[in-house]
Amino acid sequence: MSSSSDFASLDVSRFQTGKRPEGTEDFIMQQTMLRIKDPVKSLEFYCDVLGFRLVMYLEFPHWGFNVYFVCPSNVSDIPEGQAAQWEYCMNTPGTIELTWNYGSESEEGPVYNTGNADSTGTQDGAKIKGGFGHIGITVPDVYEACERFKKLGCTFHKTPNSGGMKGLAFIKDPDGYLVEILPRGPFVTKSIDCDGIPAEGGDEYKDNSK
Amino acid sequence: MSSSSDFASLDVSRFQTGKRPEGTEDFIMQQTMLRIKDPVKSLEFYCDVLGFRLVMYLEFPHWGFNVYFVCPSNVSDIPEGQAAQWEYCMNTPGTIELTWNYGSESEEGPVYNTGNADSTGTQDGAKIKGGFGHIGITVPDVYEACERFKKLGCTFHKTPNSGGMKGLAFIKDPDGYLVEILPRGPFVTKSIDCDGIPAEGGDEYKDNSK
Repeated sequence: MSSSSDFASLDVSRFQTGKRPEGTEDFIMQQTMLRIKDPVKSLEFYCDVLGFRLVMYLEFPHWGFNVYFVCPSNVSDIPEGQAAQWEYCMNTPGTIELTWNYGSESEEGPVYNTGNADSTGTQDGAKIKGGFGHIGITVPDVYEACERFKKLGCTFHKTPNSGGMKGLAFIKDPDGYLVEILPRGPFVTKSIDCDGIPAEGGDEYKDNSK
Repeated sequence: MSSSSDFASLDVSRFQTGKRPEGTEDFIMQQTMLRIKDPVKSLEFYCDVLGFRLVMYLEFPHWGFNVYFVCPSNVSDIPEGQAAQWEYCMNTPGTIELTWNYGSESEEGPVYNTGNADSTGTQDGAKIKGGFGHIGITVPDVYEACERFKKLGCTFHKTPNSGGMKGLAFIKDPDGYLVEILPRGPFVTKSIDCDGIPAEGGDEYKDNSK
């Protein structure tokens, strides 16, 4: 077995070249499912703050849950009628399926573990090696997007100039899931960010994983 | 406050209509980040089994981690050179960012909590109310896709005809993260699935959340 340092510069070129395997050519990465405490708060965040739209939802009252598919779609593209909306949704890459189990909205405090060093749901309050890290959106201008998030009262985990990686940010959704804000093109920095933090100097990079 | 049963048929129509908020029109849902134990095993699964390609990777040896962006892209679309690959990646919706922290590949057993009722990383072995549920891919034919997954030795959490929801399946990635297999169009069922289970009869729906 090679050591970690050999492993770090692993030759992975074969995964970048060649055709997709036969039978997989039309597969789409369609969804990421996250459980949420309160659908109204989550829909307000994903739609009003991140600019996503609700492209499809399904209610399962007999099983005690609803699901809401959101994505950064243009509303004019969303067809009418459940069958057409389902087909539209299943053909749209990168949607988020928000799953609400009835009753969670009435519980005190955070309900779900977000995958990042918190411990909701454990008996002993210990840290968890969370697998899920974050979702990430790309935007034309990270600093402008963050000025807007700031005005809307978002909770920041990292503003663009804080920490060791300049020019990207993390905000939190209502359940505490991290949302990374990245540029659509090359990284750029601006001298001052939405929290008044200068690009020069500041903290070094800090690993949030466990 | 309304009760859960009122809440279940919540009016969410305003999130389906209207323009995206000003300043969000060009936002893309670009990534879902998952921490992985072993990059080779994960790349083999996402690329060889699910048919994704590696569109971008970055090595951070000074910080002890690498990231691998995979998505169901056509390889002819992936440009050459890191700058062009970055821009291509940041403009592609629905990629998965696989994050490998050096050394995890040498640990015994599962390393990360998958969000679904397992307890990796807690001190007391208690269940966690995991927030992350699964990723999901859509395919032209769920039964055909599952026959192929079966031949490739995948671990099934649910074959198309088992459980209460017929015509969809769940397989596991090398870290145990669930991958839902869904149809690109309307739900169809076939009489027998890859495990020889008939569509008629069988178990009822079971909630896997906690």
